Amino acid sequence: MVIIMRPDADAEVIEHVIGKVEELGFEPHPIYGVINTVIAVIGDRTQEAMDTLQSMPGVDRVVPILRPYKLAGREVKPEATVVNVADVAVGGEAITIIAGPCAVESREQYLTTGRYVKQAGAHILRGSIYKPRTSPHDFQGLHEEGIQLLAAAREELDMPIITEVLDPRHIERLDPVTDIFQIGARNMQNFALLAEVGQANKPVLVKRGMSATIDDLLKAVEYVLVGGNEQVILCERGIRTFETQTRNTLDISAVPIIKRFSHLPVIVDPSHASGEAWLVPALSKAALAAGADGLMIETHPSPQDALVDGPQSLRPEDFTELMQELKPFAQAAGRRL
Amino acid sequence: MVIIMRPDADAEVIEHVIGKVEELGFEPHPIYGVINTVIAVIGDRTQEAMDTLQSMPGVDRVVPILRPYKLAGREVKPEATVVNVADVAVGGEAITIIAGPCAVESREQYLTTGRYVKQAGAHILRGSIYKPRTSPHDFQGLHEEGIQLLAAAREELDMPIITEVLDPRHIERLDPVTDIFQIGARNMQNFALLAEVGQANKPVLVKRGMSATIDDLLKAVEYVLVGGNEQVILCERGIRTFETQTRNTLDISAVPIIKRFSHLPVIVDPSHASGEAWLVPALSKAALAAGADGLMIETHPSPQDALVDGPQSLRPEDFTELMQELKPFAQAAGRRL
Amino acid sequence: MVIIMRPDADAEVIEHVIGKVEELGFEPHPIYGVINTVIAVIGDRTQEAMDTLQSMPGVDRVVPILRPYKLAGREVKPEATVVNVADVAVGGEAITIIAGPCAVESREQYLTTGRYVKQAGAHILRGSIYKPRTSPHDFQGLHEEGIQLLAAAREELDMPIITEVLDPRHIERLDPVTDIFQIGARNMQNFALLAEVGQANKPVLVKRGMSATIDDLLKAVEYVLVGGNEQVILCERGIRTFETQTRNTLDISAVPIIKRFSHLPVIVDPSHASGEAWLVPALSKAALAAGADGLMIETHPSPQDALVDGPQSLRPEDFTELMQELKPFAQAAGRRL
Amino acid sequence: MVIIMRPDADAEVIEHVIGKVEELGFEPHPIYGVINTVIAVIGDRTQEAMDTLQSMPGVDRVVPILRPYKLAGREVKPEATVVNVADVAVGGEAITIIAGPCAVESREQYLTTGRYVKQAGAHILRGSIYKPRTSPHDFQGLHEEGIQLLAAAREELDMPIITEVLDPRHIERLDPVTDIFQIGARNMQNFALLAEVGQANKPVLVKRGMSATIDDLLKAVEYVLVGGNEQVILCERGIRTFETQTRNTLDISAVPIIKRFSHLPVIVDPSHASGEAWLVPALSKAALAAGADGLMIETHPSPQDALVDGPQSLRPEDFTELMQELKPFAQAAGRRL
Repeated sequence: MVIIMRPDADAEVIEHVIGKVEELGFEPHPIYGVINTVIAVIGDRTQEAMDTLQSMPGVDRVVPILRPYKLAGREVKPEATVVNVADVAVGGEAITIIAGPCAVESREQYLTTGRYVKQAGAHILRGSIYKPRTSPHDFQGLHEEGIQLLAAAREELDMPIITEVLDPRHIERLDPVTDIFQIGARNMQNFALLAEVGQANKPVLVKRGMSATIDDLLKAVEYVLVGGNEQVILCERGIRTFETQTRNTLDISAVPIIKRFSHLPVIVDPSHASGEAWLVPALSKAALAAGADGLMIETHPSPQDALVDGPQSLRPEDFTELMQELKPFAQAAGRRL
Repeated sequence: MVIIMRPDADAEVIEHVIGKVEELGFEPHPIYGVINTVIAVIGDRTQEAMDTLQSMPGVDRVVPILRPYKLAGREVKPEATVVNVADVAVGGEAITIIAGPCAVESREQYLTTGRYVKQAGAHILRGSIYKPRTSPHDFQGLHEEGIQLLAAAREELDMPIITEVLDPRHIERLDPVTDIFQIGARNMQNFALLAEVGQANKPVLVKRGMSATIDDLLKAVEYVLVGGNEQVILCERGIRTFETQTRNTLDISAVPIIKRFSHLPVIVDPSHASGEAWLVPALSKAALAAGADGLMIETHPSPQDALVDGPQSLRPEDFTELMQELKPFAQAAGRRL
Repeated sequence: MVIIMRPDADAEVIEHVIGKVEELGFEPHPIYGVINTVIAVIGDRTQEAMDTLQSMPGVDRVVPILRPYKLAGREVKPEATVVNVADVAVGGEAITIIAGPCAVESREQYLTTGRYVKQAGAHILRGSIYKPRTSPHDFQGLHEEGIQLLAAAREELDMPIITEVLDPRHIERLDPVTDIFQIGARNMQNFALLAEVGQANKPVLVKRGMSATIDDLLKAVEYVLVGGNEQVILCERGIRTFETQTRNTLDISAVPIIKRFSHLPVIVDPSHASGEAWLVPALSKAALAAGADGLMIETHPSPQDALVDGPQSLRPEDFTELMQELKPFAQAAGRRL
Repeated sequence: MVIIMRPDADAEVIEHVIGKVEELGFEPHPIYGVINTVIAVIGDRTQEAMDTLQSMPGVDRVVPILRPYKLAGREVKPEATVVNVADVAVGGEAITIIAGPCAVESREQYLTTGRYVKQAGAHILRGSIYKPRTSPHDFQGLHEEGIQLLAAAREELDMPIITEVLDPRHIERLDPVTDIFQIGARNMQNFALLAEVGQANKPVLVKRGMSATIDDLLKAVEYVLVGGNEQVILCERGIRTFETQTRNTLDISAVPIIKRFSHLPVIVDPSHASGEAWLVPALSKAALAAGADGLMIETHPSPQDALVDGPQSLRPEDFTELMQELKPFAQAAGRRL
């Protein structure tokens, strides 16, 4: 870190800070300028040490040097991580398509969707039975009743399943019927939940919170990685901005940035990013062009009858068409679909 | 809701939407304009019905009319709710001051703080033993060890205690030692947790998430209210914006807006909003001037030794001085401190 | 528009608003609900009428129905506009590449750049001689001295020139040496300037302001269109958000949204959006994939010697390589480069 | 500045950057860490030098140390500046109230407003004759016709006048009838205009742009100060965020921050910040509590007949009542009203 002293900090005050740096076990390198003195301190990234020094009299700002995450960084693991979701490799040469309805609503709806998304070339079937709805007056998911539908779909379709986990107490129940746990955007900083999936022996997909910076996302997944679970996929799904034409603003730059600073695979969810089905094709293509390892797309046999997120769900024929349209973009990006 | 049809929607498409409105059990009122047709639909606020109609061909937008929350609204309960935290009434004529360290670190630190905040006139002692840190490499709280410190402080100081709950599995353990549960900003949309404290027979303070709109906050507390727990206090603590001089941007307007649309008490946390101790006095005064029912302020016997949030913690003498300075502002606002 | 009355508005208050609607010359359609009354008013989009009604007692909100722009909308002109910049058609089947340094610095620097960008396949040469720098202590451009350099480049390279205009008093001077006027993001709501280029007989490129919504951008270009100048190109260049890894957040969704609601061509500036040269290739590809009509890319013979925006300028060899890499993406999008 | 090198930068690359620092005339202080090397460079704040170094191979980030403005900073002038608008001192012990309609609409409307705001105790009368409307289809102001109305009001009421200037060409015309020039939020980075009022011999009020950081605002006013005009007042009027309940989000923290880092007076405009008249009293009180030197409040004899911004204009009786209610808050803040 670099400690920038206030212009009015006198020699005694500066000495005091230097002493504290030494007390914390670091080596201070003061540089005396005309206006400010700065003290360079190499080798630490803990918030605690920075907070301690920031709290001292005479300190204007403490600027971190090291990125605030460790295990997710390219520095500790230069080569890209490939996460295996059952037999689907995410983060390799092939593009991965996760598709399905937002929520599992019925056997009919879920199996129908599974059949056409598989037919169209999707690799993993999404479908949640616990839904984090912003209002308790809205449909919350099928809960227990949905577990057997997940199992049925996995068996009949022979396709890996991804489902959202909201509560640490549900992990055990969901474990037998899912191939990867999804942590939703609203739970990206639910550290109790992250720590719990960090103990699981199964891949985890972590969605970026809508007000989370890229650094926040990489710090949050440290909670999973530190538990020993290294099978983590990141998902960009839009951030909250002043623009109201879209539900969220897809931060397309997050894709190349995460690929550069982290070894973990990153996919894009154009459905939640936009909130509107007609925008999904353009954003899907942009995501592949920007270097995403995959997409997570919502589709429903009859969007207007969907209990959740109908407006952003593609109709079956539109999903199938999109899968075809994506191929040349995957190819242009040097990938395979 | 009001359904705005696209300019190119023809009579058949419009009829189809009108039919769907009737099928959903509502009465449609179409108004045929020169450019667009609009269909007014009175009496519903569920996201499902709006999503269904938004998903139909020819629909441009669906605009809600009713506010998206029910139980928290002034419409259902015009008079202000007063929440009793042990013997402290929050939301009445008196201003409530919650103060203390961010985290309980030791018996010495916690009791010392409790003594001087009580002496200075604070009403409720804060102190968390589970801390939601953005990085797993930072101090996470004392956990079990802290429970007896909370109990000790409550007994010695005869002051109500507020502590944060992160995990639904901790509620039972914390229940005997706390007088009010705090839901932190990062968990404002952790609906599993909200539903659980909705079952508790104890007040709950819900902090606004850093990317949550005021409507989102009021929708989230419906999860608590719907469970039967009506003892809810809201807390504005800053939102995430592009401005980086402060940790968050205190949305001071949220205070009068919440007071107008909801019957629940609202307090302000100037410490997390600003992230810097020197800003806390100005923001505290502004909060009282804007009509807040109370403040939640961080203070530490020695901020530079704090394990969490030192830079935003007031020194004991500064806290005591602020308590004095706040009095004329409380009085100007027609309140008592 | 739709006027939503407050739940406590009584019959007399409602009648008063209905009377005002009639007085303004519109036909009111009241719909009496259980909680609120709403009054539909078809056929107007002026802010004045909405403000008048919003100011009346008993009115909760006024919701616009029509989009707030006219001349830029697809409704008035369904087919796409093609803007001719000298002999370069922007908005047709071919992708347009605008490239060059941020600022014209010297004859050597400018002609060198012009030569390699033309060689690599760019269509229009950018280069500004008036620079809107956030600080007056930074380089402001060559001003008068630069005019002959623009003229020299245009003649030697036989390439259309785009340059930024900051002040209505400069239009006359720049007119002989430029083929298209650029209105920068900071001047997107400098209406005096927009009105002035609306009188010019030359294309105009308008960049989206960093806090402008898509609607704001389309409203701003009405100032140009209403003056009779219909040769307008829009440019998405990133918006201001809380994410600090990039200088701005490229709002990639703006591309398909503008293409749907407006007939004007839209290009993307990945250099200003990201602020970092290494991000430019990924964002350029994403822009073409999302349907952009062109790109505006900064490049400099020696970025580390650039007087302005060096960090986001591509090196000559990187620009040339990018031009090659873009081709399959243009093709995948059904375009030509 | 501090230059943070990438972890993979080798000795040769680091030497190259050190050489460049020396070439630019600064003294480099490299500190070799385990992961990164950092190079401290004292004594410069120009964007150019930082951009140059940021553009070099091996450089990860360049972190500024000095604040990016000079003349507006407390470092160059520790004591507070008092700006005299005719005989009204802004920034001293007394609170200054600027009030009036958004736009001058007619003699009747303007003089009526002037009379009651003066009667209620306001010090400066606002009123613009050039209005920056987001749409060209809305009322743009009285222009030339309004000049004599400004003159008439100033003479009859014996009150200083503030009016907005949009175009450098209007300064000469407005100069005889105004006592202070207002630069609106949309023009905060219209540097041609700022430079022009920097040449005027008259105070200037600069409003913060809706996407401008506090640093941006202080950098922008350097354009005025560097021209020799030191009579500058800053105005916080809300920033653009994701919250839609208010037109903008009043950044109340900007008040104490500007007061700490700059010697210039700062006032708050609660009318534009909120966009709703009923919020103005709470925000006005909060502004005084936070330390503002004054307020700029919109009021209109009949808000529902206002041509501009009716919804945020106070009725005469509400304005008069607010002036009374503000007194105890001014007093609590150690000021006078």
